[in-house]
Amino acid sequence: MTVNPSELQRVLDGRWADVRAEVRAQLGALAVNPDPDLSTEEYRALTTENLRRLAESGRPHQGFDPAYGGGGDVGGVVTAFAALGYGDLSLLVKAGVQWGLFGGAVQVLGSSRHHDKYLRPIMDGDLLGCFAMTETGHGSDVQHLRTTATYDPDTQEFEIHTPDPGSRKDYIGNAARDGRMAVVFAQLITGGTCHGVHALLVPIRAADGTAMPGVTIGDCGRKAGLNGVDNGRLSFEHVRVPRENLLNHFADVAEDGRYSSSIESSSRRFFTMLGTLVRGRISVAGGAGTATQKALALAIRYGATRRQFADPATGEEVVVLDYLVHQRKLLPALATTYALHFAQADLVSDMHDLQSFGAEQNSDSDTERRQRDLETRAAGIKAAATWHATTTIQTCREACGGAGYLAENLLPQLKADTDVFTTFEGDNTVLLQLVAKTLLSDYGRRVGKLDLVGKARFAAGLVAGSVAERTGLRAVLRRGDVRDRAYQRWLLVQREEHLLAAAARRMRRALAPGADQFAVFNGAQDHLLVAAQAHVDRIVADSFAAAVDRVEDTAVRALLEEVRGLHALSVIEGDRAFFVEHGYLAPGRAKAVTHGVNTLCGRLRPNARMLVDGFGIPEAWLACPLLDGERDATAAATDPAPSTEEPTDLAAVG
Amino acid sequence: MTVNPSELQRVLDGRWADVRAEVRAQLGALAVNPDPDLSTEEYRALTTENLRRLAESGRPHQGFDPAYGGGGDVGGVVTAFAALGYGDLSLLVKAGVQWGLFGGAVQVLGSSRHHDKYLRPIMDGDLLGCFAMTETGHGSDVQHLRTTATYDPDTQEFEIHTPDPGSRKDYIGNAARDGRMAVVFAQLITGGTCHGVHALLVPIRAADGTAMPGVTIGDCGRKAGLNGVDNGRLSFEHVRVPRENLLNHFADVAEDGRYSSSIESSSRRFFTMLGTLVRGRISVAGGAGTATQKALALAIRYGATRRQFADPATGEEVVVLDYLVHQRKLLPALATTYALHFAQADLVSDMHDLQSFGAEQNSDSDTERRQRDLETRAAGIKAAATWHATTTIQTCREACGGAGYLAENLLPQLKADTDVFTTFEGDNTVLLQLVAKTLLSDYGRRVGKLDLVGKARFAAGLVAGSVAERTGLRAVLRRGDVRDRAYQRWLLVQREEHLLAAAARRMRRALAPGADQFAVFNGAQDHLLVAAQAHVDRIVADSFAAAVDRVEDTAVRALLEEVRGLHALSVIEGDRAFFVEHGYLAPGRAKAVTHGVNTLCGRLRPNARMLVDGFGIPEAWLACPLLDGERDATAAATDPAPSTEEPTDLAAVG
Repeated sequence: MTVNPSELQRVLDGRWADVRAEVRAQLGALAVNPDPDLSTEEYRALTTENLRRLAESGRPHQGFDPAYGGGGDVGGVVTAFAALGYGDLSLLVKAGVQWGLFGGAVQVLGSSRHHDKYLRPIMDGDLLGCFAMTETGHGSDVQHLRTTATYDPDTQEFEIHTPDPGSRKDYIGNAARDGRMAVVFAQLITGGTCHGVHALLVPIRAADGTAMPGVTIGDCGRKAGLNGVDNGRLSFEHVRVPRENLLNHFADVAEDGRYSSSIESSSRRFFTMLGTLVRGRISVAGGAGTATQKALALAIRYGATRRQFADPATGEEVVVLDYLVHQRKLLPALATTYALHFAQADLVSDMHDLQSFGAEQNSDSDTERRQRDLETRAAGIKAAATWHATTTIQTCREACGGAGYLAENLLPQLKADTDVFTTFEGDNTVLLQLVAKTLLSDYGRRVGKLDLVGKARFAAGLVAGSVAERTGLRAVLRRGDVRDRAYQRWLLVQREEHLLAAAARRMRRALAPGADQFAVFNGAQDHLLVAAQAHVDRIVADSFAAAVDRVEDTAVRALLEEVRGLHALSVIEGDRAFFVEHGYLAPGRAKAVTHGVNTLCGRLRPNARMLVDGFGIPEAWLACPLLDGERDATAAATDPAPSTEEPTDLAAVG
Repeated sequence: MTVNPSELQRVLDGRWADVRAEVRAQLGALAVNPDPDLSTEEYRALTTENLRRLAESGRPHQGFDPAYGGGGDVGGVVTAFAALGYGDLSLLVKAGVQWGLFGGAVQVLGSSRHHDKYLRPIMDGDLLGCFAMTETGHGSDVQHLRTTATYDPDTQEFEIHTPDPGSRKDYIGNAARDGRMAVVFAQLITGGTCHGVHALLVPIRAADGTAMPGVTIGDCGRKAGLNGVDNGRLSFEHVRVPRENLLNHFADVAEDGRYSSSIESSSRRFFTMLGTLVRGRISVAGGAGTATQKALALAIRYGATRRQFADPATGEEVVVLDYLVHQRKLLPALATTYALHFAQADLVSDMHDLQSFGAEQNSDSDTERRQRDLETRAAGIKAAATWHATTTIQTCREACGGAGYLAENLLPQLKADTDVFTTFEGDNTVLLQLVAKTLLSDYGRRVGKLDLVGKARFAAGLVAGSVAERTGLRAVLRRGDVRDRAYQRWLLVQREEHLLAAAARRMRRALAPGADQFAVFNGAQDHLLVAAQAHVDRIVADSFAAAVDRVEDTAVRALLEEVRGLHALSVIEGDRAFFVEHGYLAPGRAKAVTHGVNTLCGRLRPNARMLVDGFGIPEAWLACPLLDGERDATAAATDPAPSTEEPTDLAAVG
């Protein structure tokens, strides 16, 4: 069956295909590959210039409320943002800071008084701003930030203050050079009572660029990557802002200092406010995805022309992508990239439906459940996608050898720029713990709802499970072919449920009287992470499977089903110790998994180029000397072979 | 038992403790942490300046022949070279190019006519040179380089020529800016016959820095890291050099063009010449080791002061290194770093004994066997040490969160600089294939030497083995405690031998008549790599165990035995799928392995700081804002607690 490449791209482009097409056409001109020898200052200037051009394109407006001149297309703007990952990641992150974090916070945490005044200049790029949440001493533990916003009813102002060096705002994008205003997260205090973390608008620089009185601005300086983004530090020495600068969508302070909120529990309020910011996390996962796709496009296209070492039988040098170990480096990673692409598309689509303007007014329990599910999925997929980016881009660099180490071949920049994705917008380890916590409480609810008979059955199931484990009965009970999709899913589901049940049992010990809670939680921490990872693996595999089933074109569907199989089998292979140890896979079956991965690598090899072309990365964004060999290879294929004494070697040059 | 820190450092310092002490004192002044915002040109100039200061220190002379004013201390110079990895890795690599590769090639491949003329200016840094081996089209496959050196008896000259773009010399250190001369590897042709790859001295720049006639010099430009090193490209257009420029230790061309060599087989000659260059590979492994130690020192010291999230029972914020998942990120990596440190020390020591001046004259079969063993070990340990550096430095960066992404905190430079170590001086994947090949031929010899009865027993053993595998009998036959050193070693040895025997069986299929050799080899490629890795794991574990046994101080020995146990168990845990699948570990026992890793992490936690201090990294080379928290933590511990409403939070700041 012949696959039509444009049909494949159509499937990958998905719901926002038109947005993708526009972005490819519209943004091609934006500083594709900045000179790698730019100084930090030069690179920052270039990025700011490109940010303004991006604003002029009207693209960033698409994510904002139509009532204020926005396009109201939340899913579209996140999709467009991710596509910037094919180009310059500094621009992507600077745009994310300006319109996603800063603009997004004003939009969702603020009210009409902020929207009227600020949304337009934010969209137009006339008011550049910061999202000042993280502090030097508190990155992951946002609830315990220490910057204060104390209300003074006499002047009807908030006083923003940095009480100690650890509560300095740190790593803040747009702070070191460009920002004029910041959304500052601080402990809100009024009438001597602390109401927890809230966000306020604080001017940080005057029009001429000098720091506002009481504001100290520092510079984080050179970083591993993303040097087009001006990350800085902000400290506040009793800085006063009007009462109206509180972003008051969820809570407000009256003139007399009275605090009010539509959400009574301060903890729930905190998590609701943070939850609205899920878009940033989803955007990072998207950017990680496109950067990974670009790295794979480079490495796979290079591997498909680069030759090294001769086949002893023919004397002809072998294309490196024909070597099994080279395929194993790149093709399972490609399959996982596909899987994450579809999981991300589902996530963006659900976010769009849930958060689009108008829909956000609902606050029934179903919407709340969907929002919570969205946040859990976003956390899990963000962790999976960014770790996958880190390892895959690293592998791509190595797969290109010395050429992959040269800046001219783009991989070093991709690696350096994406490196921080695993720890910003939520540290991956912390995010997976959040996922585990949600899974555990859902699990507890499920078990808690059982009646007596159900509980007895549940307990019996656990006993039977451990007997089955000891006797290897599970594998006997469920025989099947590891190449079979249903069998693969059974394995992934079993792993998730097994790990979750075992984690729940361990956690229950923490409830015993006199238990050292920290010791119990800490001792199970690695177990919880593995359980969360197993969950994410399963939902990603499910997204991919559903996407394959939606494909109408028979040839594309058959191809994608093989890619899906490679993803599922390589996930199973990666944790085959679990499956064998717990009796889900007989030892012989585990070898079949490895064999299956090898076989699918070989089967997909001829389509590897088409699979990376499917991402639709503009050719200008990939152009680099690494791919010069393709031109030579094409020439060699069409030119008559030169007459030479050493034909086999000459054929290999290039 | 209280460990005396200086006693621990003495054990780690080992045979060349005095060299280490000298280097720490002597090189502290050399550009510790270059400004991360230097332009490529500025950084190159700084590195060249530091290279000259290094030459003035007399340190590089130590590795050369005493007959020419050298120190004759091969092991000492490799040890000193590695210690540069605590400072600026660009300087380390530039020094390695100048004295290790360029100078080393002149020393071991040349004869007195070259030594008389060049060794002194090379040692003194007055003649900077290149090691021009790698070509654009041939990196790993050195035997098929395409640059030619054709002898012309009429003029008694060699003509060096680059026949096509793919045979351009590429990624050559010292080429873009500083080199005046290059050791060029080329196919030697005389009288119309090609004798394979040989090395010749070729002037590339005149005294004023302009390229010599016929030599085209290119610049590789900015790289992911190591930007103080001027990597470039060299092409030769019929460039003529005198006959005497052939480095003729192993082979020579007479005035009339007659070729002669002490080694008849051209393949053996090639590998003998390359084998003498093993020092470069060993030096890279050493540099990877010191860079890894530095990254771990930073991350572990930061982790031991950084606090995040409160303990629910006490309300006090927890030091992040007290979290199990944080320990699991860093402490097994630290244990492996220790293991590799001792394996590297053994390697350097054996190299020294084998290659020291005087000893190198021997060419009996025992020396040859030892040399071959050294090369195999060097290849394996280089691959293991550099991959370990890549993953560990990455992990350290992530373990420090946003702070780890800032250049001021040194981790980004460490990551970027060491990244190429996995693919230069031999691509790791190719090196492990070499290891596997040697293991297989040794294995074949062992089996081949058996008499008929032995062969029958051998075959019976294979059958019994596969029965034992099917029945899980192996684990029953060998019961033991996974915490037991002998049991750990048994597991590592079984894995190595099992994988090797299975690989040998697969390879035998290639000998069947009509077999597609490429398909057989290629299909087994991943298997061979795993076998080689298992071998390297085992020899590294053995080195560590032997080192522990040599320690006289009881407290240090007890501590190191726990570190050794953590290394062995984490290796076993990493491949526990293998052990369970093949019946070497019962499933329940596999869980004990994970439990053992967790337990040892907890036991070593209180000594983590001491273990990184043991490396003896000069404090000035570690100084960065990341470690400021240590000062604050010390202050907090000695100052009286400030009176405050929120004591638990304030205690956590910093």
